[in-house]
Amino acid sequence: MRIEGKEYRTIWFDETNQAVKIIDQTKLPHQFKIKELKTVKDTVKAIKNMEVRGAPLIGATAAYGIVLAIIENNTHKFLVNSSKDLLKSRPTAINLKWAVQRISKKLIGLEKDQILKSAIAEADSICEEDINFCKKIGLNGLKIIEEIYKKKKKTVNILTHCNAGWLATINWGTATSPIYHAHKKGIPIHVWVDETRPRNQGANLTSYELNEEKIPNTIIADNTGGILMQRGEVDMCIVGTDRTLSTGDVCNKIGTYLKALAANDNNIPFYVALPSSTIDWDIKNFKDIPIEERNSEELSHIEGLDEKGNIKKILIYPKKSKAMNLAFDVTPAKYVTGLITEKGICEASSDALQKMFK
Amino acid sequence: MRIEGKEYRTIWFDETNQAVKIIDQTKLPHQFKIKELKTVKDTVKAIKNMEVRGAPLIGATAAYGIVLAIIENNTHKFLVNSSKDLLKSRPTAINLKWAVQRISKKLIGLEKDQILKSAIAEADSICEEDINFCKKIGLNGLKIIEEIYKKKKKTVNILTHCNAGWLATINWGTATSPIYHAHKKGIPIHVWVDETRPRNQGANLTSYELNEEKIPNTIIADNTGGILMQRGEVDMCIVGTDRTLSTGDVCNKIGTYLKALAANDNNIPFYVALPSSTIDWDIKNFKDIPIEERNSEELSHIEGLDEKGNIKKILIYPKKSKAMNLAFDVTPAKYVTGLITEKGICEASSDALQKMFK
Repeated sequence: MRIEGKEYRTIWFDETNQAVKIIDQTKLPHQFKIKELKTVKDTVKAIKNMEVRGAPLIGATAAYGIVLAIIENNTHKFLVNSSKDLLKSRPTAINLKWAVQRISKKLIGLEKDQILKSAIAEADSICEEDINFCKKIGLNGLKIIEEIYKKKKKTVNILTHCNAGWLATINWGTATSPIYHAHKKGIPIHVWVDETRPRNQGANLTSYELNEEKIPNTIIADNTGGILMQRGEVDMCIVGTDRTLSTGDVCNKIGTYLKALAANDNNIPFYVALPSSTIDWDIKNFKDIPIEERNSEELSHIEGLDEKGNIKKILIYPKKSKAMNLAFDVTPAKYVTGLITEKGICEASSDALQKMFK
Repeated sequence: MRIEGKEYRTIWFDETNQAVKIIDQTKLPHQFKIKELKTVKDTVKAIKNMEVRGAPLIGATAAYGIVLAIIENNTHKFLVNSSKDLLKSRPTAINLKWAVQRISKKLIGLEKDQILKSAIAEADSICEEDINFCKKIGLNGLKIIEEIYKKKKKTVNILTHCNAGWLATINWGTATSPIYHAHKKGIPIHVWVDETRPRNQGANLTSYELNEEKIPNTIIADNTGGILMQRGEVDMCIVGTDRTLSTGDVCNKIGTYLKALAANDNNIPFYVALPSSTIDWDIKNFKDIPIEERNSEELSHIEGLDEKGNIKKILIYPKKSKAMNLAFDVTPAKYVTGLITEKGICEASSDALQKMFK
């Protein structure tokens, strides 16, 4: 998608420099910077510090991390350790494990001089597949928006939480893909963008990318969705997911569950958009999902532009206060109207997921 | 209650200077400043800019605003206009209307030289009554906490939203009063403090005042309450209210509704603490409550301390983005476990409220 009119992907391999290029998302929206990752350590750091984030993009980055590991030190031991480091970089997004396993499997039994080429091809193919899946998610989700528009004949108001936009994937996004497709088809859309504390990915990334694609959007505090739904100002919700259980329970950015409850209370459809790589077929009980607890400084401090346009970090809490920073919550399947996947829209249930994917 | 060990009220009349003294709450938590209001205009500004806020404190401030108007210009016309200006200063808190009407009624038919004395006495009495009511709310709410503690025999975890603390009243607070009373009785309490975007009154005021009273508390993003409830880490919720309908519907700081839904989904008691001055006996349909929309800069900009300890205001949103800032939402009575009032705890229903107060 576009930044200031120019087409970008979130990640690509630079053959000439033998490096991975990413958009450093911690700098957005105040600075747009391309960053070069040269080593697997750079990659782990980029994932940990959320220079790249979003389940699909984390997966792709980890795959390129393996590529960089091979370039650094093409020994079995180093590759195994690199995989372990990558897997530990963030606990909740399931795509990380999926991508590392997928690329590792591909390399088994290959000659040493074949490994790099094969790894690059597989990482590229993970990206291509993600783009393709996101596009299909968009076309499938588009049908829902079209139906609402057919009935309403006025701007469709969609609420989203956090960033499941193209910046969370390679391109198109998951939750935003139906929005981009609807916009391209000329359906008038307005997006309510949850700020998404503490890291404000809604404001910093979702609103930013929608602005760049000229899609009308309004940032709201995370607290606001409820009354907007009570007032009939939300036609549907679409969010992404970091891990979807085979039961249909959805683990996503903290606060998603609260919006699902409000949607349910006001009879508003609540959709989750995901590529199948985000499905966890192993864990059955959502209480077993590891929920990441991040540094509380992400809450107590915040970065922005001062009156001179310089980036400043400030403390916004009382000095004596402590804070706790859980990054995800779980929305039980019963509050999810449907899962928008690359294969179609299905119920958030064991049976429906089995039928569609197994 | 105490700030750095010294006892304060949020507002008082300074006879010597013929002025009203307030704690400027826009400066908290980074600076503790007493501000002097000399005119009714100062008072309107203090309410509008939220130097004082919280339904009971807004009411008391408006009452003292009438006192200042009398000192400025003791004519019928000026007093009527001053009342109008005060009533327009903020739309949602019902206590504003209640306090202005109460003090105005008291002044009808008085001799000109009696008016000032009478107004001061009435404003003081509004404050004394509020302190007394908040104390009673505390003692009534204490019973609920005691019961939980008796069963659990471990620290009682209470979640609160925004600031319905002593800083929102004259002393004790509404939602915090049961907490302060329980703490004084030696019951171990821990408070989950919702940050409460966009103005962060939870972090800036509630956590601040709990720190000063040495009550363990942890600030969380507004998004976090849901998963804490899913995990059993919240024993009860207590919030305040800006306007409670006679039907039991509760209008309070934006985001309250979402927490009530989560509490309901997880079978956690959700209480609302209020003095009867916060009840609106007129409006029957919650959709008729005027919901204040405030400047979107309260969302897009934020103030805090830079690394040198200076107060800085920064822009945290993309420059091209717009934002919307609704200040309140409504929690339907069915999600409210009970109303903790000065007269006792009652159901959030027409019948129960009529029986207790009419």
